[in-house]
Amino acid sequence: MTDPLRVAVVGATGYAGFELARLLLRHPRIEKPVFYLREGHAGVRCLTELYPQLRGWGEAPCKPLSVEAVASSGAQVVFLSTPHEASLELVPALLAANPALRIVDLSGAYRFRSPETFAHWYKLAAPDSATLAEAVYGLPELYADALPAARLVANPGCYPTSVILGLRPLVQAGWINTARGIVCDCKSGVSGAGKEPKRETHFVEVNENFRAYGLFTHRHTPEITEHSGLAPESFIFTTHLLPVERGILSTLYMWLNPARRADEIEALYRKSFAARPMVRVLPHGRLPELQHVTHTNFCDIGFALDPAGERLVVVSCLDNLGKGAAGQAVQNMNRMWGYPETAGLL
Amino acid sequence: MTDPLRVAVVGATGYAGFELARLLLRHPRIEKPVFYLREGHAGVRCLTELYPQLRGWGEAPCKPLSVEAVASSGAQVVFLSTPHEASLELVPALLAANPALRIVDLSGAYRFRSPETFAHWYKLAAPDSATLAEAVYGLPELYADALPAARLVANPGCYPTSVILGLRPLVQAGWINTARGIVCDCKSGVSGAGKEPKRETHFVEVNENFRAYGLFTHRHTPEITEHSGLAPESFIFTTHLLPVERGILSTLYMWLNPARRADEIEALYRKSFAARPMVRVLPHGRLPELQHVTHTNFCDIGFALDPAGERLVVVSCLDNLGKGAAGQAVQNMNRMWGYPETAGLL
Amino acid sequence: MTDPLRVAVVGATGYAGFELARLLLRHPRIEKPVFYLREGHAGVRCLTELYPQLRGWGEAPCKPLSVEAVASSGAQVVFLSTPHEASLELVPALLAANPALRIVDLSGAYRFRSPETFAHWYKLAAPDSATLAEAVYGLPELYADALPAARLVANPGCYPTSVILGLRPLVQAGWINTARGIVCDCKSGVSGAGKEPKRETHFVEVNENFRAYGLFTHRHTPEITEHSGLAPESFIFTTHLLPVERGILSTLYMWLNPARRADEIEALYRKSFAARPMVRVLPHGRLPELQHVTHTNFCDIGFALDPAGERLVVVSCLDNLGKGAAGQAVQNMNRMWGYPETAGLL
Amino acid sequence: MTDPLRVAVVGATGYAGFELARLLLRHPRIEKPVFYLREGHAGVRCLTELYPQLRGWGEAPCKPLSVEAVASSGAQVVFLSTPHEASLELVPALLAANPALRIVDLSGAYRFRSPETFAHWYKLAAPDSATLAEAVYGLPELYADALPAARLVANPGCYPTSVILGLRPLVQAGWINTARGIVCDCKSGVSGAGKEPKRETHFVEVNENFRAYGLFTHRHTPEITEHSGLAPESFIFTTHLLPVERGILSTLYMWLNPARRADEIEALYRKSFAARPMVRVLPHGRLPELQHVTHTNFCDIGFALDPAGERLVVVSCLDNLGKGAAGQAVQNMNRMWGYPETAGLL
Repeated sequence: MTDPLRVAVVGATGYAGFELARLLLRHPRIEKPVFYLREGHAGVRCLTELYPQLRGWGEAPCKPLSVEAVASSGAQVVFLSTPHEASLELVPALLAANPALRIVDLSGAYRFRSPETFAHWYKLAAPDSATLAEAVYGLPELYADALPAARLVANPGCYPTSVILGLRPLVQAGWINTARGIVCDCKSGVSGAGKEPKRETHFVEVNENFRAYGLFTHRHTPEITEHSGLAPESFIFTTHLLPVERGILSTLYMWLNPARRADEIEALYRKSFAARPMVRVLPHGRLPELQHVTHTNFCDIGFALDPAGERLVVVSCLDNLGKGAAGQAVQNMNRMWGYPETAGLL
Repeated sequence: MTDPLRVAVVGATGYAGFELARLLLRHPRIEKPVFYLREGHAGVRCLTELYPQLRGWGEAPCKPLSVEAVASSGAQVVFLSTPHEASLELVPALLAANPALRIVDLSGAYRFRSPETFAHWYKLAAPDSATLAEAVYGLPELYADALPAARLVANPGCYPTSVILGLRPLVQAGWINTARGIVCDCKSGVSGAGKEPKRETHFVEVNENFRAYGLFTHRHTPEITEHSGLAPESFIFTTHLLPVERGILSTLYMWLNPARRADEIEALYRKSFAARPMVRVLPHGRLPELQHVTHTNFCDIGFALDPAGERLVVVSCLDNLGKGAAGQAVQNMNRMWGYPETAGLL
Repeated sequence: MTDPLRVAVVGATGYAGFELARLLLRHPRIEKPVFYLREGHAGVRCLTELYPQLRGWGEAPCKPLSVEAVASSGAQVVFLSTPHEASLELVPALLAANPALRIVDLSGAYRFRSPETFAHWYKLAAPDSATLAEAVYGLPELYADALPAARLVANPGCYPTSVILGLRPLVQAGWINTARGIVCDCKSGVSGAGKEPKRETHFVEVNENFRAYGLFTHRHTPEITEHSGLAPESFIFTTHLLPVERGILSTLYMWLNPARRADEIEALYRKSFAARPMVRVLPHGRLPELQHVTHTNFCDIGFALDPAGERLVVVSCLDNLGKGAAGQAVQNMNRMWGYPETAGLL
Repeated sequence: MTDPLRVAVVGATGYAGFELARLLLRHPRIEKPVFYLREGHAGVRCLTELYPQLRGWGEAPCKPLSVEAVASSGAQVVFLSTPHEASLELVPALLAANPALRIVDLSGAYRFRSPETFAHWYKLAAPDSATLAEAVYGLPELYADALPAARLVANPGCYPTSVILGLRPLVQAGWINTARGIVCDCKSGVSGAGKEPKRETHFVEVNENFRAYGLFTHRHTPEITEHSGLAPESFIFTTHLLPVERGILSTLYMWLNPARRADEIEALYRKSFAARPMVRVLPHGRLPELQHVTHTNFCDIGFALDPAGERLVVVSCLDNLGKGAAGQAVQNMNRMWGYPETAGLL
């Protein structure tokens, strides 16, 4: 076994950051991770001060964030669980200060090929072009070969992960009648809406409730089209808020041309993900459900086909904090360092 | 004010039946309703024996069910909150025994124009053709004029009510590009799955969970196509189980041809439901949510249109026990007797 | 029937205020209520702008709050659904401006006999002594006779209502061995924690969670001792946060001296509440549950006694927004005006 | 590192059994566990057939149950996750067939010193006296020294674990004024009620609900008194059903004599559990909450003391499927085999 990996985490105060902390504290290949907290948590020495539930899980030392501190810390991998704005600045600064660093950024800042796409959808400054040019979109099921050499990995959004994994094999095979359009009806638990208290996340407003939001404006839209290979005008993407803590279930609708048999479709999915242990393709006739993937790093995919073989409904399901965020970040790290993709994730 | 109406209810032991009991006990135009219970509840004298939470709400006398007892009870309206099989037999028997009776049947037995449609989708005997011929589909927003003279009203299913109300104005106006297909992604609370304990309704299996079910096989499918006016092959209808007690939210996807402006669409809905107080059309830009309709008889409809005016998402939302079952049954009764549609429902 | 009552409501933006609005809009004895909103809602003309779910329920006009506007509005009853600080000032000001007004105050400002008790537990200024002297504690089951003449009614807290109704008959009868102490273990839904978003009410922090809070410091403590007649040092009162929207269930523990039979205890409760329709005493052997009282104004009381007749557990259960706040306020109004206590509450 | 342990599990179809399977499949010290299923699951070859969510976690072979098959399987430890009746018979039969076996029984059959206690409270046959005589009550925090040599371990009930751990240090120190009585108000999630669908576990009956049950009749009562050292007549134990999947929170009330300071109490708990890593004593002023222990094997203990130092409220909190069942069973196995108590549990 190789030497343990030295890891730094910037920002661990949101839900994804906390999930990342939990995963790293029990990962068999890494040394005690160090957490760099942004302003507002200056005096915190140990993550258990913020999260008493971490008592007993091992040491989780905290330090104040500065580019210098992280760059000179000896860390080989840095996870950024920071807002888009912060990542925009931190990534080039860290790589400049220590070119040997390798970064997994959980924000949206480096997910798009064109800097303008980010600037347009996120209403923020465009990312630095040179930095962006070396970013790899961290979906190991699509870009497995690019990860081992990547210095910057842009960890995907939660909705895009579920939708892209469900659509990509069919798009690539050219089986979809895209002229009829594709509908992606997605539902997410509340942890996806962030930790900051607001009206929309008040228990009384969410509990026993359900609603759609962000129609035609959700900024995960361009991420999906770019990496699934669909034309923006040929699909509709909607998001809904489920009264559960975690999990995303995406129901994907399309018409096939020509018609296909169910076993052909199952075989296509199985072949596409044969070497990828974190996607579980269900046998035809079984559909995934949220409970089977929450608190895991799996993405479960199942489907139903009408008797004529023309109308296809694919259901793709994952934990928005697992495969949709922190788990995927760890999977990317595993892939970057040549560890088994599942290391620390089972 | 006219004399109070005399009402009988057959079957009040399911969730819809209990909701019906609650509505009838506080309805201003009816006399004390009498409940006829089927076997298994022989000794019950009062509904509070089954539902202690009804104590203090008024008398709810119970009697053993027989066709003779109901037919000769003096009741003017009979609500059947019974399984499909029971309604298949009870409706003709009651009308034969007392031709002056008027029946609102909450089962699926008399909802289809053709007896074969029911027999095929429900795997049961076909309903009697003559009886079926006089049945009116009890969606007051579509068949308001047929209800005052109806002797038999087939109360719609919960999913169909939400989908048909959302689609019918657009179908009738001919605005939808049906060649591209229509997707109906529907989500329902657990009370829609019935009161009988089973694995699928165990708290631990539903809570913090979400899943699709009944794909391409749900028996509400033909009800939707028949009354919305869509061709079966042009649409996909899916259902999902929400971890909430009650409520249905249907997200309806379509492409328009030619493109439309949002104000045109809002105006179309407003005109369609101008005289129908139980449908609330939301102003463009606002979307309905479950909490706003649960414990009410309203169906709320909102929509979002893409900037090109071509891709349209309609959201239709109601309480599956209210407008989707018991409330709608009372609304039908109101319409049959010339009461305001909202009587006893606000 | 007498002329309809003219009603004003100050503050309707919290959960209790909204519940009050719903109750008043459907109350058979009152005219269209007028809502006076505090700063921050200056331009609101109608409550449906804040609560779209009220569309279709009737007019709910809003006006900016000023003492003059309310005092000269013609309203006969004013409900104050305002913070303690606001009520402290509004009550004397309104009574000075229009001595004929009658006020039901939902805050804690006027609930205690001594001004110092309020000042001490609420860390606020003491209420005006003269005003306080005429306040009636609005628990109709205890102070039914004082309400018809009251000009100022202090609507009780939610926890105290459930605890006092459960304990008062036994304390008054002298059956409890108070030397051993009484334990009140109370659990409440989240709407009791108010509408303002904060970490403690974030869905993710409440859902699938449960915790105790406010031990030995909850400001409902003196309200309970004062009106139940218990010595502060002889009892322990704790509160817990349930992952539900609404409802309080209080489990009350005591030792009896001498031992009693279950039928004696049931008879004592029945006699105590014989004339009070909003308390439902359950037959011995049945225990109340939250679902049976939520969305109602009932307080359900049941108990279990050990075989020796010495250890008694009483369970008292109500809706914190109903009998614990808005419903009780309406019940107080009914009692003040000689209407049936249940008017508008069934 | 020693050779991996060979493990058999009888019964894995309930919630505790499934949790046990998950823990054993990822335990670092054991070989692939073998699952012996009782009748009704004859043809099942692999646990993933029953639990598709286990796909990807490793092999979980299943075999039909017979005493001979288990006794000759080579397994060194057998976990019985079986009903009380089944354990009553299986334990002596397995020990007779293979005296070298060591058994952890999750049922209630061997938890009491006297066979009559079990027979009386469980309404079943008394366990075999000789077998019972060698049973060790599997609460490692109390009986750590007896476990390494134990051949039969009776895994404790979920409620008793939380109550005994909260009370035992105080009882042993003699600090409680037992003459005044002790109240144990306990709340549990629904998985504790078992997997069989019944009215009490239907989602609609549990969701947005809360109720007490089993007052003065719960069969965990004698387990608590026997192992905490309390006299039955001096305490009251009640249980309530929380609308959550998992977790128990017990609020324990007592009067101290003489009065104590908070730091004394904290020190007593810390000393009592200094060598026991699965109990986390919270600093004075912090109280445990369910979310911090669910999906873990920790029992968190906190307390609040009144200013006079006389009234003490202790809150003890654990996961009913973790420290309350399957996790504790694994902890017992760890202790029996000399592994760290936390092995496979972090």
